[in-house]
Amino acid sequence: MSEKEKRTVDVAAAQMLDKAQEIGFLTTFDRAKAQEPRCTFGNTGICCRICIQGPCRILPKKPGGNKGICGAADYTIVARNTVRYIAGGASAHSDHGRHIAETLLHVAEGKLKDYQVTDPDKLMRVAKKIGVETEGRSVDDITKDVANAALDEFGRMHEQDLTWITSNCIDSRLAVLHNTTIMPTNINLSIAQLLHQTHVGNDADPVNIIFGGLKTALCDYDGMALATDLSDILFGTGVPVVTEANLGAIKADKVNIAVHGHNPLLSQMVVKAAREMNDEAKAAGASGINIVGICCTGNEVLTREGVAIATNFATQELAILTGAMDAMVVDVQCIMPSLRSLAECYHTKIVTTMPIMKIPGSYHLAFDEHHAIDSAKEIIRLAIDAYKNRDAAKVSIPDVKSTVVAGFTLESLLNIFKKVNPDNPIRVLIDAIEAGEIKGVALFAGCNNLKGPHDYNHLTVAQELAKNDVFMVATGCAAQCFGKEGLLNGEGVQKYAGEGLKKLFARLNEKAGLTTELPLVFHMGSCVDNSRAQELVTLMAKEMGLDNAEVPYVATAPEAMSEKAIAIGSWNVALGNPVHVGVVPPIVGSTLVNDIVTKIAEDVFGGFFFWETDPVKAAGKMVEILEERNWKNRIRAKARQAKEAQ
Amino acid sequence: MSEKEKRTVDVAAAQMLDKAQEIGFLTTFDRAKAQEPRCTFGNTGICCRICIQGPCRILPKKPGGNKGICGAADYTIVARNTVRYIAGGASAHSDHGRHIAETLLHVAEGKLKDYQVTDPDKLMRVAKKIGVETEGRSVDDITKDVANAALDEFGRMHEQDLTWITSNCIDSRLAVLHNTTIMPTNINLSIAQLLHQTHVGNDADPVNIIFGGLKTALCDYDGMALATDLSDILFGTGVPVVTEANLGAIKADKVNIAVHGHNPLLSQMVVKAAREMNDEAKAAGASGINIVGICCTGNEVLTREGVAIATNFATQELAILTGAMDAMVVDVQCIMPSLRSLAECYHTKIVTTMPIMKIPGSYHLAFDEHHAIDSAKEIIRLAIDAYKNRDAAKVSIPDVKSTVVAGFTLESLLNIFKKVNPDNPIRVLIDAIEAGEIKGVALFAGCNNLKGPHDYNHLTVAQELAKNDVFMVATGCAAQCFGKEGLLNGEGVQKYAGEGLKKLFARLNEKAGLTTELPLVFHMGSCVDNSRAQELVTLMAKEMGLDNAEVPYVATAPEAMSEKAIAIGSWNVALGNPVHVGVVPPIVGSTLVNDIVTKIAEDVFGGFFFWETDPVKAAGKMVEILEERNWKNRIRAKARQAKEAQ
Repeated sequence: MSEKEKRTVDVAAAQMLDKAQEIGFLTTFDRAKAQEPRCTFGNTGICCRICIQGPCRILPKKPGGNKGICGAADYTIVARNTVRYIAGGASAHSDHGRHIAETLLHVAEGKLKDYQVTDPDKLMRVAKKIGVETEGRSVDDITKDVANAALDEFGRMHEQDLTWITSNCIDSRLAVLHNTTIMPTNINLSIAQLLHQTHVGNDADPVNIIFGGLKTALCDYDGMALATDLSDILFGTGVPVVTEANLGAIKADKVNIAVHGHNPLLSQMVVKAAREMNDEAKAAGASGINIVGICCTGNEVLTREGVAIATNFATQELAILTGAMDAMVVDVQCIMPSLRSLAECYHTKIVTTMPIMKIPGSYHLAFDEHHAIDSAKEIIRLAIDAYKNRDAAKVSIPDVKSTVVAGFTLESLLNIFKKVNPDNPIRVLIDAIEAGEIKGVALFAGCNNLKGPHDYNHLTVAQELAKNDVFMVATGCAAQCFGKEGLLNGEGVQKYAGEGLKKLFARLNEKAGLTTELPLVFHMGSCVDNSRAQELVTLMAKEMGLDNAEVPYVATAPEAMSEKAIAIGSWNVALGNPVHVGVVPPIVGSTLVNDIVTKIAEDVFGGFFFWETDPVKAAGKMVEILEERNWKNRIRAKARQAKEAQ
Repeated sequence: MSEKEKRTVDVAAAQMLDKAQEIGFLTTFDRAKAQEPRCTFGNTGICCRICIQGPCRILPKKPGGNKGICGAADYTIVARNTVRYIAGGASAHSDHGRHIAETLLHVAEGKLKDYQVTDPDKLMRVAKKIGVETEGRSVDDITKDVANAALDEFGRMHEQDLTWITSNCIDSRLAVLHNTTIMPTNINLSIAQLLHQTHVGNDADPVNIIFGGLKTALCDYDGMALATDLSDILFGTGVPVVTEANLGAIKADKVNIAVHGHNPLLSQMVVKAAREMNDEAKAAGASGINIVGICCTGNEVLTREGVAIATNFATQELAILTGAMDAMVVDVQCIMPSLRSLAECYHTKIVTTMPIMKIPGSYHLAFDEHHAIDSAKEIIRLAIDAYKNRDAAKVSIPDVKSTVVAGFTLESLLNIFKKVNPDNPIRVLIDAIEAGEIKGVALFAGCNNLKGPHDYNHLTVAQELAKNDVFMVATGCAAQCFGKEGLLNGEGVQKYAGEGLKKLFARLNEKAGLTTELPLVFHMGSCVDNSRAQELVTLMAKEMGLDNAEVPYVATAPEAMSEKAIAIGSWNVALGNPVHVGVVPPIVGSTLVNDIVTKIAEDVFGGFFFWETDPVKAAGKMVEILEERNWKNRIRAKARQAKEAQ
């Protein structure tokens, strides 16, 4: 791989990186290089900064240096650091969920005029799932109860298992969670207790600490599951949409606005308001308004509104480097502070909107849910104003984009399966597995991480799995990579799928009745929508009569970066899923903790982690795992048949 | 200072450190040395591990290295790291408070036979303070409401200011908290939101981040204020007690049990059970049971039961090195994991008791509040059994201890003042200030930190302030240092107090009616009892007609170490108190953040931080601050008089 190839597999991004070099702007790619080589202590997890006597590093060669000042061994330090990542991730996801729940409650209370229950069918399904009475009740009353049930996940002070876990998991899995005492009862309480557990001079037992971490990881799951459900109720449950992805989706003749962040409360309003404001854009000389998405708020409006993908995490700066980005409207999480200084070189307006996310020097417009559309319009007017200052000489939009077929919520995926098997849609997948057409299902999740070339791991793992007949679903920045690289369309199937997988696709396409062919990878939404994938595997488990840990299903975060990714990976493990991580995490500094999460976890939960930076090897291992689970299931089936024959 | 003097000012500790060297055990003092020199990045706060692309360090000389990979500048990184410390501290303190609240509720519900409302007067005072109806209601009903009000601080999902803040602060201070938008409404929510705020790609604005941190620091205050109130209700509000401090309090002829940690729920039961079990100890050949305290659970049982102090944080291992410690019973926080390996060299039993605090290889006895006395007895029997294995040849208890007069809850302190001024007890302090006898009040709080010699900063700052006529109160490990060093008795006054302070003490001693003279420093309790000191300064503010930030009051953490100390310091600042910290915290890596907390904070809150590692200089600065506040108050008074004369 040449130095340039080592940067990214994304052709559009590569062009923009060359441009950055020309104008002398140091991007995140340069900053990642500046941090090489990483500090070994931090990089392997054996640096402790939990009190201010240190920092302590494990220095086995110095007398007294093999432990921290308090006496914490490598395994204690690594375990504490690891679960504090989980606490950060769970906080981010669940606080997003809480915000949605609060908004939904206010909608039902008639306090917010610009939001409404868009999908009453989903409301009914969620209400029934969590045990809210629906018979003869008004939508508002049911909505209130559902929203309050969600808020109660954060608020209740008595011992009661989290509702979105108990209502989404099958009994065998709930038994595992209870037996290992990791079932949480309150999201925020678990987070606070985990910080307490890892305070200086508190828990030193790595197993106990990791179990505390898994409890909090389940809160991450709960928070995202309710975020998904309630967002669907508020904004609709996505159906298949066709759009495009990559920087080529930015239009030279339009006012371009990127929505960036995670929470759809704002981005949905921006999309809605923009539709009414094309005339204002035209009055400013543009041919209209073009909204594009970056990171997961982009995935939210892609799923529900068909908004195009501009790019994913690592390349967010490059959208500005096109010179045609008039405003970037950001809400929360994964927004690089560097956007502001880059925007200085252009006319681009960076607009922060949330009270817990500001960037010094950028424009802050406090988003007001009580006047959501007005707030959104104000933001769009900022973009239109900025457009007037756009310097045409600085515009160079890479002519690179791919067609995207997305919008695959679990509901819309099952609707397609239903065309093949109206009585039992999930059997479509299981039949294909049992027929040996496909080896199982893989979930792609998570971020970009510039410890490796951008998007390379995502792309390579997917290509390898496709070749090996694995049915793939994806969320977050992984899904956006696939959008850009042409894996979210039918050509992807033709190009990469193995024969078995192609057969399944042929059957699906024949009956699906869509105007376009189904994509190689099914885009399930934002990172909180990993809950949709978990619903999928649980549905498979139910239908197969298995526990989750027996289903041929595997998750991968080929380029994991954020605390959220660590939290997602951890609950996947607790819920029985094998999880590949394509970067070596700061856990390997303790052989003990590393063994707990990569080996012992499998004995306890069925799920486990494995680290593999080589994407080809990683895919190989994932295929092996699926084959092993299928082999075990065949043995189980034979044993069952033999027993029945007796 | 010789190398040996650089270790500690505690003579008993020095003897034990020599013994450790003899037997070749590396103590925390050796481990602290092994970490020298500290990593500069971590030590100044410019190492970021909030995602796993890094760790990123601020490397200004490398192109692209002046910011983290995401573009976070030094000020963003330092601010995020700082407030995450606060989140850890607030979690520890408030979770302790929540545990007490839950227990109190279960007491009122009749679920716990071994606990009861010991101080119904305090219950009534707290109920009235927080607005719980008391008229004609049973103790159980009032208790339920008070306990539920405390639990509601963690649970409510609607916007309502935290009760223990609003009911403890004066209006002028509440106005500051509201105007700066840092008034919290839910403890656990604020903690989770702070983690969310500091997630990768979230808030980059150091001012906004610090304000988020202060909001959470106020949750730390709220959690500890309710912990103090509810512990007093459950176990009684301490009154003056006479006991002793230092390793000499360990008795060669007795079964010695150290209670160590923070939460009185267990230690109170151990003390109670021990009183009934002297015969069992005698049957094993000892002359009885001797309970001693380490860290704040020790301070809790000192305040309420007169239990002696063994030692404080940094020297906890040395209690085992006496060879006469039969069991160390630990609950939560500040317990060195190294205790277990040291205990291997002796007969000592380390007993962990709480679900979130275990040490691999130590004995875990899950404390059961439903059978609290039985649990405590079981623990004591472990100690008696261990005693039988004690090796007399290994016993060497330093013959070092000091008399301690402690138990100065705010109530018991005011009771003494009442003897001098029955109508208006707090005037005793204010009259002394206005008469120029004393310069004001100083609170000593916090830990040990082996970045400097053990207890040296505590002792030296106190000696200097005494000389300069400052009235002193203390909590936590600072208070324990003073106990060991003879500052918690009347001789301390004779030895160190300036003439003005001596005059005040003479007046107090004359009327106090105690069997012993009052101590130089008033021991107010454990670290959660910093809330008592805050009540004191608020009482002064009320009586003086001032805001908190105008009262001649200053706080110091001469040897701050834990996240809790950072949280305590931070709410002190938000509540208007100047705060000295005797170690340089990992904030100095950002001039901007450093300036915010040491300078701008004063303009906004009246309170501010200052770092000074030289205890003589630190005391000098503290005296200057008190003098400045007095000078301003005299000017104010004159202006008022002039106005009135018009």
